[in-house]
Amino acid sequence: MSSENNNFTAWAGVENGKPLTQVELTLKQWDENTIEMDVTHCGICGSDVHTLDENWGPTDYPCVVGHEIVGVVTRVGKNVTNLKVGDRAGVGAQSGACHECEPCLEGQENMCQGGIVYTYSSRWPCGDKSYGGYADKWRGDYRFAFKVPDNMTSEIAATFFCAGITTYAPLKRSNIIPGKSVVGVMGIGGLGHFGVQFAKALGAKVVGISQNDSKREIALELGCDDYINASDEASMAKYNSGLTHIICTGTSPDFQWHTYFALLKVNGHFINVSAPEWQFPGMSAFTLLSKQIKIYGSGIGSPKEIEEMLAFAAEKDVKPWITTYKMSDVNKAIEDFRAGKPRFRFVLEN
Amino acid sequence: MSSENNNFTAWAGVENGKPLTQVELTLKQWDENTIEMDVTHCGICGSDVHTLDENWGPTDYPCVVGHEIVGVVTRVGKNVTNLKVGDRAGVGAQSGACHECEPCLEGQENMCQGGIVYTYSSRWPCGDKSYGGYADKWRGDYRFAFKVPDNMTSEIAATFFCAGITTYAPLKRSNIIPGKSVVGVMGIGGLGHFGVQFAKALGAKVVGISQNDSKREIALELGCDDYINASDEASMAKYNSGLTHIICTGTSPDFQWHTYFALLKVNGHFINVSAPEWQFPGMSAFTLLSKQIKIYGSGIGSPKEIEEMLAFAAEKDVKPWITTYKMSDVNKAIEDFRAGKPRFRFVLEN
Repeated sequence: MSSENNNFTAWAGVENGKPLTQVELTLKQWDENTIEMDVTHCGICGSDVHTLDENWGPTDYPCVVGHEIVGVVTRVGKNVTNLKVGDRAGVGAQSGACHECEPCLEGQENMCQGGIVYTYSSRWPCGDKSYGGYADKWRGDYRFAFKVPDNMTSEIAATFFCAGITTYAPLKRSNIIPGKSVVGVMGIGGLGHFGVQFAKALGAKVVGISQNDSKREIALELGCDDYINASDEASMAKYNSGLTHIICTGTSPDFQWHTYFALLKVNGHFINVSAPEWQFPGMSAFTLLSKQIKIYGSGIGSPKEIEEMLAFAAEKDVKPWITTYKMSDVNKAIEDFRAGKPRFRFVLEN
Repeated sequence: MSSENNNFTAWAGVENGKPLTQVELTLKQWDENTIEMDVTHCGICGSDVHTLDENWGPTDYPCVVGHEIVGVVTRVGKNVTNLKVGDRAGVGAQSGACHECEPCLEGQENMCQGGIVYTYSSRWPCGDKSYGGYADKWRGDYRFAFKVPDNMTSEIAATFFCAGITTYAPLKRSNIIPGKSVVGVMGIGGLGHFGVQFAKALGAKVVGISQNDSKREIALELGCDDYINASDEASMAKYNSGLTHIICTGTSPDFQWHTYFALLKVNGHFINVSAPEWQFPGMSAFTLLSKQIKIYGSGIGSPKEIEEMLAFAAEKDVKPWITTYKMSDVNKAIEDFRAGKPRFRFVLEN
């Protein structure tokens, strides 16, 4: 099962505005912390498209995006303890950390201050480029690859590794009290549909929030107990000081803090996991003082949290709603993604 | 000792831009939840001047400011349980709450959603105006009046009731770990000098932060372990990702989030207790995501926290640095206050 072949085939972005192109590239150099896998599935994340479009800064082409990767392990280095050849494994947005800084030593490698390796658009410490999962193979550090639970299919597993952990981790950390917490999920999309399910599974009452009524039905179908149309005064008024938490998975450039703070109870949490190109607006000190609301963001999750999420999701039957595309149809999948068609996540399969 | 006289004499703001004028006014109507006291001391708070200057909105003149009041109780209603005639009592920025809303029922009356009565520039439920402590008498609700500890002088006690609780309460709630937490105190003024002392007393290492070096010496004298000149790159770099908490007691209109986030560790706390006229600026989502820093404000403190603070301050010998003025010299005191002379708090005495 071992492979000495250092090449792989990927669907790479080669230039801004051009379709992805099938190219042969070189895997990162092998070391004893490395695993290699045959990619079977890879989710499409908004970050993939933002990166291909250079929305967050220049992209170092060729760029192989995809950070919701599941595959079958084909080779493991001597230091690898968590995976063996033949295992199904998943990889998310982070593929490396320094393992020496304070957050790393505290088990918060997702907040590593010494040099995070992102799964794509990044560099390994050896200098090699990191490549994501729109490909036939993936090679990287075993400490950021996780065994897929036996009772979870690979196509279902894939999107947990970015969208899933991004919503699970902050909800898990934010003191949700079963039967007492009321969580508003802003944005009913790829992240939001995980947010709804995780908040429910953690015992909260869950209220979907979107800019109009078009998502009402599907939000309730996902498990929301209620729904707020943020453009409708009466709908907003019903939850005036009614939520303990808001998780913001998406919003629009006309976002105003006070609009959503009105929905939150005293000492409420406003948790941002979205990454729009535009800025959050300013606010008066009184907005911060009047209800003592905590604003914070959360970036993916730690390896420990990923393991915990997989077990929790398998136990509570949290499941993404996905549409699968053949990997070779990736350009069609991205076209549909740009058109806003995912309900709620696309997964490419080899 | 009881008094049926419903009048009192105050130094009132009568018009924006005019000096305070000695006037006779009517105390709020008596009820069985009421106490009355002869004011012996009243601190001068920045809020007093903001209100007199109508910086936060129009002021309903005549206005008697002052919400760091200490006096000797002269009359108590039948429902009063915590104070008796002759006791020394203190009153802060809040004088009433609904006692029925969720925050009230949870002992967070400072976050009352059903109708806070502020000590001045506010109305009692009966419709009477509330008047502060630049006066010879104060009358109000016993549930917001607190017995001054025997080992604390009245002039020392006064400023705890606003500046003290404003800094104590959020520091107490913010998970300071003795020997581990490193608290930056932005602004070395009336609030900041309490913040430094409370953070030290709670067991943190404390770093004063100001815009230049002019406060360095006095910050160290107050008990700071170190000092950051925020205009000096090397000084800032020394504490890059070095603080667990920042309590912002004052800053300037050119404030930028990322400048101070650079000082905070992962999962750090940025606590605002300042109330400037200008807004906090916008920020990118990545600023929120990258270190998972929590931003929140805090408004004064609950009655329970005020009691706790008084006992803690008496035990740990936390003491404001004050300059006293005769109440009749209030206009001179305000002039000196505007000139930035307090080191660190002014107290008027009758």
